[in-house]
Amino acid sequence: MDELTRAVVFDGALRVVRRSPPRPADDEVVIRLRLAGVCNTDLELMQGYKQFAGTLGHEFVGEVVEGPSEWLGRRVAGEINVSCGACDMCRRGMPTHCRARRVLGILNYDGAWADYFRLPVRNLVAVPESVPDEAAVFTEPLAAACQILEAGVIRPSDRVVVLGAGKLGMLAAQVVRLLGVALAVVVRRERQAALLEGWGIPAVARDELPAGQADVVVDCTGNASGFADALELVRPRGAIILKSTYTGLPEADLTRVVVDEFRVTGSRCGPFAPALALLGQGLVDPLPLIDGRYPLDEAAQAVEHAARPGALKIVLQP
Amino acid sequence: MDELTRAVVFDGALRVVRRSPPRPADDEVVIRLRLAGVCNTDLELMQGYKQFAGTLGHEFVGEVVEGPSEWLGRRVAGEINVSCGACDMCRRGMPTHCRARRVLGILNYDGAWADYFRLPVRNLVAVPESVPDEAAVFTEPLAAACQILEAGVIRPSDRVVVLGAGKLGMLAAQVVRLLGVALAVVVRRERQAALLEGWGIPAVARDELPAGQADVVVDCTGNASGFADALELVRPRGAIILKSTYTGLPEADLTRVVVDEFRVTGSRCGPFAPALALLGQGLVDPLPLIDGRYPLDEAAQAVEHAARPGALKIVLQP
Repeated sequence: MDELTRAVVFDGALRVVRRSPPRPADDEVVIRLRLAGVCNTDLELMQGYKQFAGTLGHEFVGEVVEGPSEWLGRRVAGEINVSCGACDMCRRGMPTHCRARRVLGILNYDGAWADYFRLPVRNLVAVPESVPDEAAVFTEPLAAACQILEAGVIRPSDRVVVLGAGKLGMLAAQVVRLLGVALAVVVRRERQAALLEGWGIPAVARDELPAGQADVVVDCTGNASGFADALELVRPRGAIILKSTYTGLPEADLTRVVVDEFRVTGSRCGPFAPALALLGQGLVDPLPLIDGRYPLDEAAQAVEHAARPGALKIVLQP
Repeated sequence: MDELTRAVVFDGALRVVRRSPPRPADDEVVIRLRLAGVCNTDLELMQGYKQFAGTLGHEFVGEVVEGPSEWLGRRVAGEINVSCGACDMCRRGMPTHCRARRVLGILNYDGAWADYFRLPVRNLVAVPESVPDEAAVFTEPLAAACQILEAGVIRPSDRVVVLGAGKLGMLAAQVVRLLGVALAVVVRRERQAALLEGWGIPAVARDELPAGQADVVVDCTGNASGFADALELVRPRGAIILKSTYTGLPEADLTRVVVDEFRVTGSRCGPFAPALALLGQGLVDPLPLIDGRYPLDEAAQAVEHAARPGALKIVLQP
């Protein structure tokens, strides 16, 4: 390991710094980065969300270079929520909602945009050989897409609308399709439409959809208009699954929720094993979503590219 | 039946008018009012909600005076949603969400604040002899409280908070209590607290409750602060059941819903049979909620009383 290693740090500005190699705690390993992803949450953190300061990055595939022998040299992805194991939420089997949780590259835990970074052993998941780095780097966002199904809301006989065909929406659409539902994805860009249609998923414009007919609407737009559109599109007693977070408090027609008895379910991080299973079996196809590949030293350019309208996944390599 | 009969009409102002007796359609009966209730929805309609104009009133107990012989002379309550039976929602077993629904005293259907009024035969439910008029008049709001359980969200082992101890909240608390849950009701008035404690239900102030601990929060406040309080009180992955409707669009922290993966369920009208069963078995005690009793001719005074802060149920009699 080099004496000094690189890390992409945000502290009001984005900088590549050189620092001592990370020292793992007893329950941690050190991972050498192979490939990392840029997520919308990273962009939000750089705009002040959660007053973040530190090493960014939570989407990664890497190789264990320090830690228990059974993990050494293995290619891994990793659960990003670092939980305490002791609080009521952990004890109730909901470690991603740990009361004292730290989150890789998001909350009180140095992130993965670095040559080397730490993670607890219990957070590791092994990446099957059949899954190349370029697919494995999607494990975390694909797990977040799998979380849409984890809610137990969508059934095969449902009519489902996915709003938003960005990074997350394109994964969500591919996962939801696997249930056999009648699916439509609302898109605004020709390229997304072509990708979706290549997977056999109907891509439609917002005004092509009838009001009040969808059994479930999944909002992946990232903005408040997504919730308003969902209220318009879902049938009485239908379900809205929210994946979008917002800056500020949007106005929301909660009366509509009451009168039409909608069920609104928030959905955040998801299970890694199903995500890796889908990648391993080729049931989800993330590779066409990669729009750019930058070395760590050009993280600023990578972030600028990721922020362009219509950009899909940007990845970073050491 | 009198040549002219009274009806309480709102058309920008509240007036008692005399009109010809209602003529039932083939599938309808005529009901003679015994007792009617004033609901917050009535107050909202008089403030412009849904641009209502017509005969008000949807909470009632009455006697069938015209219709099929098997119903003649029977004491009845009635489902207020008048459904078409033909649309997709009706065919899917959700007639209260009929696409073409009319609603007694609320939407395109003359209400029950009248000497005589109509309702479809299929909407009638017979009131058991053991249930006095003063209890039977609560059938509709108690059904709306039962709808909280109909969502299938609350389990006996849950910690539940009911926000708001108004007309609906006091019924909701009594219904939720029946599951054996650990229940607390947030109250602001001494009288409501005393009533609740008489039923063995803990009444607490908002600031006595810890943040993020409730499994389920039921919002019966009728204002947007209820949703904000619910977000504070519920645990991660917990549930919020919304009974409140609002004038205007409140700001809502939907990011919180996503990050903490809350489940938000809207809840409106409910099932009449369970409500009457609870009244018949004495499991819910509505009588102490009656705050005033006025003749139809004094509907304006009744409404004024119902609008006073802290007022509970006001009833109207012919």
